[in-house]
Amino acid sequence: MTSPAPVVLVFLDPAFPAGRLADASQPQLLATDQGATRGDGIFESMLAVGGDVRKLQAHLDRLGGSAETLDLVIPAQEQWRAAIATGVAQHRTQHPARSSAEDEVVVKLVATRGPEGADSPTCWVQVSPVGALGRRQREAGIDVILLDRGYDSDVAERAPWLLLGAKTLSYAVNMAALRHAHKQGADDVIFLSTDGRVLEGPTSTVLLAHVETADDGAGARTIRRLITPQLDTGILPGTSQGALFTAAKAAGWELGYGPLEPQDLLDADAVWLISSIRLLAPVNHIDGKEIGTPALQKQLTAELNALYAGVQ
Amino acid sequence: MTSPAPVVLVFLDPAFPAGRLADASQPQLLATDQGATRGDGIFESMLAVGGDVRKLQAHLDRLGGSAETLDLVIPAQEQWRAAIATGVAQHRTQHPARSSAEDEVVVKLVATRGPEGADSPTCWVQVSPVGALGRRQREAGIDVILLDRGYDSDVAERAPWLLLGAKTLSYAVNMAALRHAHKQGADDVIFLSTDGRVLEGPTSTVLLAHVETADDGAGARTIRRLITPQLDTGILPGTSQGALFTAAKAAGWELGYGPLEPQDLLDADAVWLISSIRLLAPVNHIDGKEIGTPALQKQLTAELNALYAGVQ
Repeated sequence: MTSPAPVVLVFLDPAFPAGRLADASQPQLLATDQGATRGDGIFESMLAVGGDVRKLQAHLDRLGGSAETLDLVIPAQEQWRAAIATGVAQHRTQHPARSSAEDEVVVKLVATRGPEGADSPTCWVQVSPVGALGRRQREAGIDVILLDRGYDSDVAERAPWLLLGAKTLSYAVNMAALRHAHKQGADDVIFLSTDGRVLEGPTSTVLLAHVETADDGAGARTIRRLITPQLDTGILPGTSQGALFTAAKAAGWELGYGPLEPQDLLDADAVWLISSIRLLAPVNHIDGKEIGTPALQKQLTAELNALYAGVQ
Repeated sequence: MTSPAPVVLVFLDPAFPAGRLADASQPQLLATDQGATRGDGIFESMLAVGGDVRKLQAHLDRLGGSAETLDLVIPAQEQWRAAIATGVAQHRTQHPARSSAEDEVVVKLVATRGPEGADSPTCWVQVSPVGALGRRQREAGIDVILLDRGYDSDVAERAPWLLLGAKTLSYAVNMAALRHAHKQGADDVIFLSTDGRVLEGPTSTVLLAHVETADDGAGARTIRRLITPQLDTGILPGTSQGALFTAAKAAGWELGYGPLEPQDLLDADAVWLISSIRLLAPVNHIDGKEIGTPALQKQLTAELNALYAGVQ
């Protein structure tokens, strides 16, 4: 039941309280599973560093929220925790990291609506290596294009059947947007609403920073402000953005929540796409226009990375 | 390699020119398949009557169009045809129809982007029985609610990365819309654009009919007109609607293509949702309002069913 590939699978299974290990190189899903035939299910992607999953509770909570939005009944958080622990431990045993700097794995949680007619979800945990591309982009930054997401910024409240704010398996549009960006020579996408609001990346949350000097009579001081789009536009609540905001606030940053427009991105001192695996990816260009100044971007990125490193 | 369940699976596999039969009751997909993890793939659903797949060429052509929109390279149509023939023949052998009236099966074609990192699609044909619900709805008709699809009617041309007009596996929103309708006591949904145009059902095309009497001097004659929403609103081109339009035209019907608004549905003499498996489902009520008159609806449905029965 062990896998030669660097992917470990653990299925949630009532007969196996710690989860059922399965061989990722062998078929494990029925062809009639509604995850495969209709993208009908939910997921989370998390980073484990040195064997510890970061922001585990926030991800389990968001998985629960997605399940509720899709009317999916999924196993209790304890069962997910047990399967995650099994998967991470197995991966560390089978594929030990070559160095502590590389001791990172992706932990993906998936819950589908299960096989047609079965009325019970298929749930599993996948543990796999972190891709080299994401690591490079943390360092080198990314070029981004703005793309229309097709929805206006009010639709989420009006039309809950659109499942905005749930992290579903129906990701074909997100993948198509990334392919569209790659064809244009860009690395990633920031989606806009039809009414011109900044939304999110296909797999990330948008952050921007402003640094200004204020003098309130007691002498000049530097104000650093971290801003992200407001949630009621139907974007996914970012677990990484949430954790970073908490850490940044404790370190004296001011926080802000959109509405944001493209010009706000162009006027920022730095822009990032933040997500659980790639972490903070500095945005160098948007639609070919340089963002901020390289020196300040580098400094702010280092500062936020240091703050984020303290996130549990 | 045979299945006890009434589902037959045939994978497209270069080593098996007629397709590779697989046991549908056993896992056949890798958990890393991007069909299962991202709804990244395409599909078609077709009806086979007495062993003959209806509108096969139209479905293969639409599958090819969806593949192109998603930048998926899929096997040639001959390979699909061979696998379909294998699957249908196997199903007829294993699960012969109890009567000629029940000699119908669903033939589903699926192509996913394949396992992560493999760069080759996973393609299969699934043959299974027609559900009882669809058969009942052909006879009894359905109640429908109108739901906002969140997109305006121009978005398809503006934003090809939204994959409108492709039949992708990312169907979570379509399934959520149907659940929303069921919670309201309705059977199905007609989606509207944000600018109030009639689009399509989650798994069907909208049709409406007007019957009027004209007198052009040569005596009174009855004009029957069949209307469907125009395609440039980003709806899926309906293979059943297309075939029915061809047959209806030959039988003297006039044809029309939207823009349609909800009032056009309420003013129609009959409204149907048409799709490949359920065929023509007469719409009895929309948002609680009765459509047309039962007698005329029944007569028009019978007439169109007779025309559709001649479709190859």
